[in-house]
Amino acid sequence: MTINQAIRDLSEALGDRVSRSKSDLSLHGQSESYFAPMPPDVVVYPETTAEVAKIVQTCAAQGCPVVAWGTGTSLEGHALALQGGVCVDFSRMDQVLRVNDADMDVVVQPGITRKALDHALRHTGLFFPVDPGANASLGGMASTRASGTTSVRYGTMRENVLALQVVLADGRIIRTGSRARKSAAGYDLTHLFVGSEGTLGLITEMTLRLQGQPEAISAAVCAFDDVDMAVDTVIATIQSGIQMARIELVDAASVAACNGYGDTDYPQKPHLMVEFHGSEAGVSEQAERFGELVSDMGGWDFHWSAQTEDRTALWTLRHNAYYAILASRPGARAVVTDLCVPISRLAEAIAETRADIDASYVPGPILGHVGDGNFHAVLLIDPNNPMEAAEAKRLSHRMVQRALALGGTVTGEHGVGFGKLDYMAAEHGEAWDVMGDLKATLDPQNILNPGKMVRHSN
Amino acid sequence: MTINQAIRDLSEALGDRVSRSKSDLSLHGQSESYFAPMPPDVVVYPETTAEVAKIVQTCAAQGCPVVAWGTGTSLEGHALALQGGVCVDFSRMDQVLRVNDADMDVVVQPGITRKALDHALRHTGLFFPVDPGANASLGGMASTRASGTTSVRYGTMRENVLALQVVLADGRIIRTGSRARKSAAGYDLTHLFVGSEGTLGLITEMTLRLQGQPEAISAAVCAFDDVDMAVDTVIATIQSGIQMARIELVDAASVAACNGYGDTDYPQKPHLMVEFHGSEAGVSEQAERFGELVSDMGGWDFHWSAQTEDRTALWTLRHNAYYAILASRPGARAVVTDLCVPISRLAEAIAETRADIDASYVPGPILGHVGDGNFHAVLLIDPNNPMEAAEAKRLSHRMVQRALALGGTVTGEHGVGFGKLDYMAAEHGEAWDVMGDLKATLDPQNILNPGKMVRHSN
Repeated sequence: MTINQAIRDLSEALGDRVSRSKSDLSLHGQSESYFAPMPPDVVVYPETTAEVAKIVQTCAAQGCPVVAWGTGTSLEGHALALQGGVCVDFSRMDQVLRVNDADMDVVVQPGITRKALDHALRHTGLFFPVDPGANASLGGMASTRASGTTSVRYGTMRENVLALQVVLADGRIIRTGSRARKSAAGYDLTHLFVGSEGTLGLITEMTLRLQGQPEAISAAVCAFDDVDMAVDTVIATIQSGIQMARIELVDAASVAACNGYGDTDYPQKPHLMVEFHGSEAGVSEQAERFGELVSDMGGWDFHWSAQTEDRTALWTLRHNAYYAILASRPGARAVVTDLCVPISRLAEAIAETRADIDASYVPGPILGHVGDGNFHAVLLIDPNNPMEAAEAKRLSHRMVQRALALGGTVTGEHGVGFGKLDYMAAEHGEAWDVMGDLKATLDPQNILNPGKMVRHSN
Repeated sequence: MTINQAIRDLSEALGDRVSRSKSDLSLHGQSESYFAPMPPDVVVYPETTAEVAKIVQTCAAQGCPVVAWGTGTSLEGHALALQGGVCVDFSRMDQVLRVNDADMDVVVQPGITRKALDHALRHTGLFFPVDPGANASLGGMASTRASGTTSVRYGTMRENVLALQVVLADGRIIRTGSRARKSAAGYDLTHLFVGSEGTLGLITEMTLRLQGQPEAISAAVCAFDDVDMAVDTVIATIQSGIQMARIELVDAASVAACNGYGDTDYPQKPHLMVEFHGSEAGVSEQAERFGELVSDMGGWDFHWSAQTEDRTALWTLRHNAYYAILASRPGARAVVTDLCVPISRLAEAIAETRADIDASYVPGPILGHVGDGNFHAVLLIDPNNPMEAAEAKRLSHRMVQRALALGGTVTGEHGVGFGKLDYMAAEHGEAWDVMGDLKATLDPQNILNPGKMVRHSN
């Protein structure tokens, strides 16, 4: 590849929106995780789809890697420039292009962040439900098939992206899907690009499904003596038809960290935090029925509230849990695992993981989106101690093996990136080869985020 | 291709489960629609995935077409053997392999029919929600991305297939997805095969998402003076957060046909039929709020019921509407159109379609799954009058153009098959070429349902 020629061509096309400054390269070579920095050769800031197409065409002509960049909040090193090349920063393509109230959808550019979208929708009575915690870009969320606390009710990015505009590896611009709520017309290209982590094309526009702001919201929190009881309560709740907007588990170690971080004083036991969306009468009924179930299943310390301030306090606690856990070991760096199993196997997956971590010297509180069977252990390691990094890797490896043995997946929501690539063969078998064939078809030069997602060709 | 050699090899492998009987070939060359019969050269009845793989390998070796067959209820000629070859009838692969109560999923073979699955699940407290009307096979429903009356709440086959086992064009057997509710691990192959109409692989096993039987169900029916008012009511209902399990529109002509067919006496006006699923209190509240909305929006003749028999009568009426419409012109054959548009454009799509049909001599009552923006005109033609077939084609063509102009899709749920192939370029533009590239990658010999879905290579 002749990156220098690419940079000259890009500078001609984009002027001062091409950067080789040290700080820019450094920033775009970082990740929020434990991976070593891998900076690109150049960062470009397109403002239109046509410019993105031009960038990709230039890179195709020169055989240079193209790595898309949202906000850099991914946890598996998705946007690390393993082979250098051109980082396409979408921060200048961050507009809401159209809100369609009656259709409850919105057309956005990929660089818009979750919070900016929330803000843009605040007077519409509508909201976008997928919330991965971080203030990620929507393009990044689609590319990694993100989810979070609300997926048990509203689905993940998989269910909430209706249509895309994508720039292919040869610079062609295509549209996938439409604003129609369903279609039986052809291969589902939208779902092929969602979760493809920038390896099949660059998303330049997206149509997202919106939800109506619920008339009422109630939330509840309760304690259990052990995780099994909590998970059984989740299963019973789902089976009973009670519709939760969120149902989160924090284990005793997470509760301890949260109590230490804020001014709460929850019993140091596993807790469930739930939220219900609906009519006034509806959410009251759901909370009441949930309370009965909790009591039947041996839960205690049940509190529920329809007051905004109480709810906000509860979810602030949950959203800050990661930071609370991080703060519980000053100076530590987190290795966050991300398993998802069929919910019938969730209790044993968590129990075995808990036992593994307890037998180790690395602390690792557990929390998760239990309605989906998804949980994270936040392994806290001393970044200056390679032994601890190796121990975290060992624990993580055992968790991944466990998830696969239980019929689950190695990543529920964080994606493959650099961190989970080595497990793709184990999870998918020959289907991974099929993924490689699709990649080779859509990106024959292997310029789109090379070194990720599929088997290395060398 | 040497079909004779393939037949000899298949006979050796499958014995008397290889049929060349006239009746078998004739049956498997028919469709429920207006297309001329196109029989295969041979019909085979596999009983295992290994046998399916063997069949495909044999066909790959001889370069013979392979066409999958469920129950033959598709409406766009999906399973017509355009180029002859081997028809793979899945009727002997019709078992429920495993019901996972706690996970609310079920693993089935593709030949099981919708009603057989209902029956198998009847004591579990769970049900599979997708109901296209016909007693189709689940494999066929997945392959055509089927939906129906309940999709407004529970989604289409797209949302309800969790995982697949697929035999590829070279006989390899892969698994896509898992029983985990979500995953961010790799390309979404499950969604690539759902809706691929047997052109990328043959589905040999499927994991389906189930729902809990609702504690209570209520249904309502009401009349409107015109379709606009009915559609505005649907939009207002969705925006208000009232969760409908079904919301169906029948236009005045459909109501007339139904009244003539059964013993009902509905006013000859557009009607909405709705159903609510939830708790006793929940469905009462929803029905009441819906009733208020109907009254606010100018609807009348509102009836609602939580009684099973009244509900059954209502949905029997809806399910029989197609037969009632068919019976309204004795001897006629139906050309059923299948548009889906953003719901904000639905009223005008229906009004223009209605005007078009009214200006024609071909009758065509309209009904549809309006919560999804999907509707059908049932064009009734004299099968012996080529003028009428041409007129139906003209009307259908105008409807398709209209759907595309309004940001919709040429087929909401019936699929592409033979009937909508000519519109794929108009709907997808260059994305259709990408579909062709994917087809060429996964089926380089073009043996899987050739002549469908992608551009003809000749």
